[in-house]
Amino acid sequence: MKTDLIAAIEAGGTKFNCAVGTGPDDIRSQIRIETTTPTETLHDVMEYLERSAREYGHLSAIGVGSFGPVDLHSSSDTYGYITTTPKEGWKYTDVIGAMRECFHVPIGFDTDVNAAALGEYTWGNGRGCDPLIYITVGTGIGGGVLLRGSPHHGALHPEIGHLMVPQVVSEAPNPDGVCPFHGNCLEGLISGPALEARWGAPAETFPPDHACWGEFASLMALALMNLTLTVSPQRIILGGGVMHQMQLFPMIQEELQRMLNGYLQHYEVVEGMQHYVVQPALGDNAGLLGALALGKEALKNH
Amino acid sequence: MKTDLIAAIEAGGTKFNCAVGTGPDDIRSQIRIETTTPTETLHDVMEYLERSAREYGHLSAIGVGSFGPVDLHSSSDTYGYITTTPKEGWKYTDVIGAMRECFHVPIGFDTDVNAAALGEYTWGNGRGCDPLIYITVGTGIGGGVLLRGSPHHGALHPEIGHLMVPQVVSEAPNPDGVCPFHGNCLEGLISGPALEARWGAPAETFPPDHACWGEFASLMALALMNLTLTVSPQRIILGGGVMHQMQLFPMIQEELQRMLNGYLQHYEVVEGMQHYVVQPALGDNAGLLGALALGKEALKNH
Repeated sequence: MKTDLIAAIEAGGTKFNCAVGTGPDDIRSQIRIETTTPTETLHDVMEYLERSAREYGHLSAIGVGSFGPVDLHSSSDTYGYITTTPKEGWKYTDVIGAMRECFHVPIGFDTDVNAAALGEYTWGNGRGCDPLIYITVGTGIGGGVLLRGSPHHGALHPEIGHLMVPQVVSEAPNPDGVCPFHGNCLEGLISGPALEARWGAPAETFPPDHACWGEFASLMALALMNLTLTVSPQRIILGGGVMHQMQLFPMIQEELQRMLNGYLQHYEVVEGMQHYVVQPALGDNAGLLGALALGKEALKNH
Repeated sequence: MKTDLIAAIEAGGTKFNCAVGTGPDDIRSQIRIETTTPTETLHDVMEYLERSAREYGHLSAIGVGSFGPVDLHSSSDTYGYITTTPKEGWKYTDVIGAMRECFHVPIGFDTDVNAAALGEYTWGNGRGCDPLIYITVGTGIGGGVLLRGSPHHGALHPEIGHLMVPQVVSEAPNPDGVCPFHGNCLEGLISGPALEARWGAPAETFPPDHACWGEFASLMALALMNLTLTVSPQRIILGGGVMHQMQLFPMIQEELQRMLNGYLQHYEVVEGMQHYVVQPALGDNAGLLGALALGKEALKNH
């Protein structure tokens, strides 16, 4: 099992990160394919997989973590598809069909953020945490939920980025959220592009003590409060480009504790707060390694 | 199994409802015990159980759905306790200890709302629904979550009543929420006592077209939107005294669909909305019958 070669594909709206290996310490090759049209992009992915199989040997399984929404119901006609995405040209795209036809190996397929959660659970900061939540804050906001180490789906799958939170008093020049669907949802208020639209400049240009970050911490803490009250996780991992701002972690932890206001008295949110909201150990590789973990799981459960 | 006699206890802050039977169609006896002090109340419960065993025969299992927070970790020293409740005198009360000592039968123990969810899953409007959410709106607000028919716990257990939702434009004379912990959380805004405090009279005295109910529907829809985006349930059941206002159901369904704004495209929230947010089939017996279902499950898994 440990030496089975797995192909990992992190299918994103901007790029498809692909790799072949057996784990974080043994990545044999890795490439980045631009996300253009489904035909072109998926063709390039298939070419990479075929080339990798020739160079490194038999691929035992494939793991795909994809942007969504995706169809995760294995009995559905559109299983393995990206479904109702607003992304131009990608509506109802069969992501894994060609792989299935060509390789005849187990394929693990899930959302990009469920994959990232699984990556952190397998090799990173989520080891042993049940439930575990992974949230990424970048171009958009997404979240994955693991229960007993398995991605949670439900009727569709979590879409945590669009949680509605109370708006906080804001000094932003444009306080209104920018989500085309929900206006003031989390993604509409504090994704990378939302911060730029609302505060008038790319967020990474703001100093660590800028008012933008205080507002961010309050809004994120409200979302984490709701997740805490619903999922009751053991840990929440916050990744993605915007979370490179390390000053945010203590700010969010403090705000969350203040907002919960002693109502919940279990260890994680009382003494354990600084281990409750943490950064990913796998950094920006959580998604790709998570896809690899999805492949490993698919092989194990085959 | 079908004829095994089960004792059911719905442990509430005002009353303990107790029954002995095999299912909804076969309740042999039922009593209501006032919630006074733990010693007195639990003594009366034990007396009822002993009397029932003499009258109706061997009790094969006991199910307890309790107000909380409760300790659900079977390996914990305080398993089966009500823990940090603000309810006078009930902090760290061992609810099932005496039953365990006296009866030596399997005991199912969970939150009152997880029990109610299980009752609806077993005999009511939640049959076959995975995930299933049950929310009660009365003196307080609570919610249970079933995954594959089993109550979800996590690090503690869901405490859905305290979700933070955006405040909506309100005509209430006192718009501010009254939760002593969180002010404007769901319970602070739309529990029975919160409605009375905010609108100046008991909510049941307001006509169906009163502004109070429009605001209620908006706030509840926001909470259900967040639950939909996190748990992705197949169905949400809304019970409790306040939900006797039947006009609320179409209002909440419409508001939820409007707020989701086409972002989620799975069946439950597109064509299936009137089967997505529904009333309990077991009415106000969901909690007690749920406790009975907890007992049955405990027996089965024994």
